[in-house]
Amino acid sequence: MTGTTGQISRTAFARNQWYVAAYGREIGRELLARTILNEPIVFYRTQDGGEAVALADRCVHRRYPLSAGRLDGDTLVCGYHGFTYDTTGTCVSVPGQKRVPRTARVRSYPVVEQDSLVWVWIGDPESADPDAVPRAAHLADPAWRTVGGMETVECDYRLLVDNLLDLSHETYLHGGYIGTPEVAETPIVTEVDEGAGTVRVSRHMDDAACPPFYARSTGIEGRITRWQDIEYHAPCLYLLHSRIAPRGVLPEPDGSDPNAFHVEITYAVTPSTDRRVYDFWCVSRDFAQDDEDVTAFLHDLNHTVVMQDVDALDLLQRSLDTEPEGYQELSINIDTGGLAARRILTRLAAEGEPQPAHAPAAAR
Amino acid sequence: MTGTTGQISRTAFARNQWYVAAYGREIGRELLARTILNEPIVFYRTQDGGEAVALADRCVHRRYPLSAGRLDGDTLVCGYHGFTYDTTGTCVSVPGQKRVPRTARVRSYPVVEQDSLVWVWIGDPESADPDAVPRAAHLADPAWRTVGGMETVECDYRLLVDNLLDLSHETYLHGGYIGTPEVAETPIVTEVDEGAGTVRVSRHMDDAACPPFYARSTGIEGRITRWQDIEYHAPCLYLLHSRIAPRGVLPEPDGSDPNAFHVEITYAVTPSTDRRVYDFWCVSRDFAQDDEDVTAFLHDLNHTVVMQDVDALDLLQRSLDTEPEGYQELSINIDTGGLAARRILTRLAAEGEPQPAHAPAAAR
Amino acid sequence: MTGTTGQISRTAFARNQWYVAAYGREIGRELLARTILNEPIVFYRTQDGGEAVALADRCVHRRYPLSAGRLDGDTLVCGYHGFTYDTTGTCVSVPGQKRVPRTARVRSYPVVEQDSLVWVWIGDPESADPDAVPRAAHLADPAWRTVGGMETVECDYRLLVDNLLDLSHETYLHGGYIGTPEVAETPIVTEVDEGAGTVRVSRHMDDAACPPFYARSTGIEGRITRWQDIEYHAPCLYLLHSRIAPRGVLPEPDGSDPNAFHVEITYAVTPSTDRRVYDFWCVSRDFAQDDEDVTAFLHDLNHTVVMQDVDALDLLQRSLDTEPEGYQELSINIDTGGLAARRILTRLAAEGEPQPAHAPAAAR
Repeated sequence: MTGTTGQISRTAFARNQWYVAAYGREIGRELLARTILNEPIVFYRTQDGGEAVALADRCVHRRYPLSAGRLDGDTLVCGYHGFTYDTTGTCVSVPGQKRVPRTARVRSYPVVEQDSLVWVWIGDPESADPDAVPRAAHLADPAWRTVGGMETVECDYRLLVDNLLDLSHETYLHGGYIGTPEVAETPIVTEVDEGAGTVRVSRHMDDAACPPFYARSTGIEGRITRWQDIEYHAPCLYLLHSRIAPRGVLPEPDGSDPNAFHVEITYAVTPSTDRRVYDFWCVSRDFAQDDEDVTAFLHDLNHTVVMQDVDALDLLQRSLDTEPEGYQELSINIDTGGLAARRILTRLAAEGEPQPAHAPAAAR
Repeated sequence: MTGTTGQISRTAFARNQWYVAAYGREIGRELLARTILNEPIVFYRTQDGGEAVALADRCVHRRYPLSAGRLDGDTLVCGYHGFTYDTTGTCVSVPGQKRVPRTARVRSYPVVEQDSLVWVWIGDPESADPDAVPRAAHLADPAWRTVGGMETVECDYRLLVDNLLDLSHETYLHGGYIGTPEVAETPIVTEVDEGAGTVRVSRHMDDAACPPFYARSTGIEGRITRWQDIEYHAPCLYLLHSRIAPRGVLPEPDGSDPNAFHVEITYAVTPSTDRRVYDFWCVSRDFAQDDEDVTAFLHDLNHTVVMQDVDALDLLQRSLDTEPEGYQELSINIDTGGLAARRILTRLAAEGEPQPAHAPAAAR
Repeated sequence: MTGTTGQISRTAFARNQWYVAAYGREIGRELLARTILNEPIVFYRTQDGGEAVALADRCVHRRYPLSAGRLDGDTLVCGYHGFTYDTTGTCVSVPGQKRVPRTARVRSYPVVEQDSLVWVWIGDPESADPDAVPRAAHLADPAWRTVGGMETVECDYRLLVDNLLDLSHETYLHGGYIGTPEVAETPIVTEVDEGAGTVRVSRHMDDAACPPFYARSTGIEGRITRWQDIEYHAPCLYLLHSRIAPRGVLPEPDGSDPNAFHVEITYAVTPSTDRRVYDFWCVSRDFAQDDEDVTAFLHDLNHTVVMQDVDALDLLQRSLDTEPEGYQELSINIDTGGLAARRILTRLAAEGEPQPAHAPAAAR
């Protein structure tokens, strides 16, 4: 794993997978437009049932974005000529005539709302298994206090996966926030389950400086024992189980861990286009849950850290876009997890239905 | 006509046609640059005769835009090295030598000024027939009071033709301004003269709500009889004869119409590039001609309506540009006029000289 | 030479040549990023020796720009994951492991600092001869007082070479600053040494108006004898020896010239990308050397003149970019020097190593 060279391949999406489209709180009676895996989708919530609806964001008539229209009860009215759709995407009214053409319908997408997240399925609807949506139960668990947000990064989504799976960058890009020298110095242990599509990367620091992110939120003074256990469920869900304790304090023999602080860092990595990714991020903690100062501090500091990543990845993508064809990367031990993730993503993309890339929605 | 599917074809221009380049008032002793059918043109008016001149906006020397230069009497001096052209496009002076190369000339374009508009001919000059310029006499007729303007829309010019030929969008895009439910509900009658290249679309509403545009300008209270008679002369000129009267009031048996209000809505649709169109618009009325409040109101409200179209067409073009190859449209009765216009435009483009698209001006 | 037509060819760079990368004063302990001949390069100065270092601005790991990192002594630390390079481009440290892969190195570029300029060599390092760097000794000579700056122009670098080799444009583009009618009217004498890659263009005006640039700086009232002697050393260095004297005042028989004012106008023309050029400019004078008003005036007025060129060349490039394939230029006597320069540049580009254009830096 030391000194291997390679190159990131052309972007291909794993279509037969669940992706986070939005936080549940983002979807309501205002139309929300998101482009996911290059497909423009409009989201809204029904009036009574309050169910999330996902329809293709292009009117069948002249392909005007439906998200520029308005809701009439549970139907969606195009803002250009008034073609009107029900929640299944069936057109129920057109202007100037009573008869609605039979073929007048837009695609509707399977949706699952779970753990405060709204997941959408872009590929073959027959393959959409709601039970296969990966869990992030802490996000909706009152035992955890969660802050979060979403940023749009102008890069290939795999650059964000790379970023998250190799935390040694915390030392350099996020020094003074969440990074300390020990992160880059401490070797990692990587476990890959190619079949399940999961990658685990662990870095246990026995004796590390405490970065401001944890010093101020936990109140620990002095050095710490810091564990980072990454659990990536390709393609979308990334969990970082973070354990912070005064130096030398370990879990009890029975597995309980009353003297440590636990933070769950959750990311959902949802490709928007070939060069844009939605970066959903949450920080959940099991301590100081009612301390609003800690809540505000963790939100603001993590937002700062996320924006450092956004700026770096925007810059990296712009740089790659001007690189000559066939440029090389050089990978080392720290990249083991990221390279495994890339392999899994490549396989998942190949396993999906034939990449239609730019086939008409109507033909699917 | 119900439920036919199709797709807008690749942009092609009808070159052997007259196009509105500018209002006469826009052309004077300041150089005016406009790009028409992808050709950069500079316009000015001669000192004494006051005739409009249209020359290729590229110096023969290094292709610097002549519009960045200055007038010297009736000659045009390039702002880079001083190559100087007369009104026929012949170069009459170059720097550093007495002899002017015989081939030093830029193209001049046939121009006709009529009805307050300056029309230009881009195609084969031999085919330019000044008598074939379509008329919009009301624009320069003192019996009509006219307001107008010009907006640039970042879209294929045919999206604007589509927009204008199907007024059912008034109900949705311009509701509260010029649209009411009856516009979308009332069926249309379409007449196409493929040979003459004209399309007529009529919508006569016997009993309709009166939109603010007409309520405030005419003073009518209550419901109205509203006629919309479109007359499109492909490719450039669009006339909407609009008749508004109190509900039930019809023209007299002798054809006179003293108890109605008449508004002529004029558009000139001039393709600039494949993705830009000049949208000239005028509103002419035969009532309240001296009422400056009505003049200002009609100007401002129609400008608002035009900008609603501009925003919608910009958005539509951006959406189409990200659509996969082979996307489909679904057309219904309201589209009869627009589809006929597309057919005529396709024929006119094919009939023109072979599309040089990107052949050098000098070689023409 | 009168009335020849042709066309500028596709951009190709002469790689085996020295180019000005920066003024010496621009390179210090802050990282400076410049893209030269499409290659991103980061510059800095060592701590003790103060030598200028030029390294490829892409980390071998994930190609993050090294210019976004930081210096640690004389080593450069990548801002993403901390890969660290010495001044030769050899990677000396990577995160998470002791062993540094043998292939971990970035390219370093030969550099020469001379006459206040830092020159860099992009092509085959074996061919880099420091003694071949052309001289502009006046820039660092206390007998001359120099002001200068650098602007980025969004155009093919050859448009700037064209501009500088044909000063007849001073009359039109810079009228009222440095141009007068006599510049465009006076014929030129051109000498080309194809082998040495030099072009000389002379224009001696015996009786000319004095433009503000010289009138205010020299104090001359009335008409002048004005000599412009251009000496272009392709591809990068351009010297304009400018002599201004009261009308009729000539050098002494012994060659001395005590009664004239001398100004050396220096340009360095460094291609950044196919559509961007660094335009380094200096004005050096042998009179009023301690007059700060004259210093400020010449700086500000020449900056204004340079910006007139920048605006014109930006506009010209945008115009050329929309011109059809195969557009023609028409050249006359004034273009003799510029056309010779183009020929030399084409030959130098062809003589260089095979244009790798977009081959990976690692493979070189």
